Amino acid sequence: MTVTGIIAEFNPFHNGHKYLLEQASGLKIIAMSGNFVQRGEPAIVDKWTRAQMALEAGADLVLELPFLVSVQAADFFAKGAVDILERLGIDYLMFGTEEVLDYESISKVYGEKAEQMEAYLAGLPDSLSYPQKTQAMWQEFAGLNFSGSTPNHILGLAYAKAVAGRDIKLCSIQRQGAGYHSLSANQEFASATALRQNLDQPDFLKKFTPAHHLLETAPKVIWSDLFSYLRYQIVTCPDLTNFYQVNQELAVRIRVALKSSETIEELVEQVATKRYTKARVRRLLTYILVGARQEELPSGVHILGFSEQGRQHLSQLKGKVELVSRIGKDPWDSLTQQADKVYQLGNPALREQNFGRVPIMKGK
Amino acid sequence: MTVTGIIAEFNPFHNGHKYLLEQASGLKIIAMSGNFVQRGEPAIVDKWTRAQMALEAGADLVLELPFLVSVQAADFFAKGAVDILERLGIDYLMFGTEEVLDYESISKVYGEKAEQMEAYLAGLPDSLSYPQKTQAMWQEFAGLNFSGSTPNHILGLAYAKAVAGRDIKLCSIQRQGAGYHSLSANQEFASATALRQNLDQPDFLKKFTPAHHLLETAPKVIWSDLFSYLRYQIVTCPDLTNFYQVNQELAVRIRVALKSSETIEELVEQVATKRYTKARVRRLLTYILVGARQEELPSGVHILGFSEQGRQHLSQLKGKVELVSRIGKDPWDSLTQQADKVYQLGNPALREQNFGRVPIMKGK
Repeated sequence: MTVTGIIAEFNPFHNGHKYLLEQASGLKIIAMSGNFVQRGEPAIVDKWTRAQMALEAGADLVLELPFLVSVQAADFFAKGAVDILERLGIDYLMFGTEEVLDYESISKVYGEKAEQMEAYLAGLPDSLSYPQKTQAMWQEFAGLNFSGSTPNHILGLAYAKAVAGRDIKLCSIQRQGAGYHSLSANQEFASATALRQNLDQPDFLKKFTPAHHLLETAPKVIWSDLFSYLRYQIVTCPDLTNFYQVNQELAVRIRVALKSSETIEELVEQVATKRYTKARVRRLLTYILVGARQEELPSGVHILGFSEQGRQHLSQLKGKVELVSRIGKDPWDSLTQQADKVYQLGNPALREQNFGRVPIMKGK
Repeated sequence: MTVTGIIAEFNPFHNGHKYLLEQASGLKIIAMSGNFVQRGEPAIVDKWTRAQMALEAGADLVLELPFLVSVQAADFFAKGAVDILERLGIDYLMFGTEEVLDYESISKVYGEKAEQMEAYLAGLPDSLSYPQKTQAMWQEFAGLNFSGSTPNHILGLAYAKAVAGRDIKLCSIQRQGAGYHSLSANQEFASATALRQNLDQPDFLKKFTPAHHLLETAPKVIWSDLFSYLRYQIVTCPDLTNFYQVNQELAVRIRVALKSSETIEELVEQVATKRYTKARVRRLLTYILVGARQEELPSGVHILGFSEQGRQHLSQLKGKVELVSRIGKDPWDSLTQQADKVYQLGNPALREQNFGRVPIMKGK
């Protein structure tokens, strides 16, 4: 049977995600962010709830991305997720995008010229942000011209890089309806951003996500629930450069900006520069929040849930891939688990996120 | 003019403190704990409010003890406070006690036999707590026999040690009415503990503290306002032994106990042993909370408030003692100021505690 991999956040799951799952054939494996997501914020509902949403909409297997894969710029995010999906034996990597291009050819270009392309990128002036450098690189080597307002396309290019040289085919699907950040929702599709902003509108949720019941009842976490901990961490930590990717310049900027910031957005706004984008700053603040330090990625793959088909696939992998289906005394990934404890502080209604939890079995 | 020093917490100020101030003659200088107190907890109201209470009841000068003096076992607390008061030129050190003894003679005993006494104490088995060792020492060398239930007497003995060999006379005053921890309050005097437990009873406050109006209106902070930060700190800090006086054994005990503790008292209860008393554990948890590391004590003396007489005394000290009356860009004591920022997180109604604050001038 064909095995299709999808890299996702489902923050929260919506009709567009359901549409994407419906386009996939064969066994559908999701590599999903845990309790913190790529743009540097807590997921609106926890990983177990989001895994449940995916299973109910047709996913066969949901795996958790480690924190240091989830909360990363596009390239690292894509590479880390593809590394995991490759071990799980996917044939296709499917993704939604604003621009349906021939990503396969783009991947080949990168496969052939990776060294030159990375050297070109490294030679660009540091006044450019990393996304800007990436855009310049693709323009130079593949004639691609795009703006920063198509995040799924940007991720698509990151996937094209990540699968280069691997036995994985790319399968892009035109995104339906609203754009990633779009707040409008006239049709069948609303963005995850729009859903997060309409959590108090049951009719809206019912219209735009099949998981409206789970979404309504699950405990929510947003940055403002955690901002006081970030403030506390910055106040009590003598050296912020101990944290992942925080350099001296940023440490100083963050300390100064905190004095006049009452919210995460005010803080991000003040710390960000042309070079350090807001998304990057938000990720850095997330690293500080959870106390992230440079760490090895975990060797095991953490399973959040599966269907009967997914279970059969897993049983074929036994002995070949280190699968973690129950976290006990030995941690799966200590940083992810630490981040989850911080996430839990955001809402006392949340259950323990790791210790003793077992995968969700669809239909059980 | 005679100068009398008093070491105090005023947590909160009550009629017993007023009585003590009335017994003092001449200029009355208070060395007062800042926003965290000796038993390892946040002061119920902030240091400025408590300084104001003291000034209104007759104090002439209120100085702030640095965090690492305030939050210490009796001996270090007494020594640190006496060091400061000595620089301020006190003739007498006055204190309330449950047992009025000849502390002067006791001080002389210590002055003559300090080395033997400390050697004796150091030779006692580590199964005894530090307070137990101290009791054994005083029994051996001065024939004193007392229980652990007279904390002011224990502090009195610590003062007797601290003034040994200095040109400071001790002046003990029989405590009036209720004991330190007593919750009963039938007479004119109620303990600070009783006041803290009756903050919602205006009539009670009116009866037992002259500062009832300030006490009612000032923002309050209790441990439960800060416990989630302590939990966060323990969760995100990779090595608790970085903090002041936390050893490996305690670090492990604290991490294990946190899992089944919902309150500070539950945590203290589980971590404490025969050797590590509850007060000591509560102080250690306070060190962790504020991120305290071993640091030099500050060279300057921070002034919280003064009367006209106090101001005149200060002007005589200029050039001889480093007085800090306004904290700006250069910190007075970075640890105390860090602790104050944490304290402020306990109640958003609190004003900035240091930057730009100037001493309270009585009657202005």
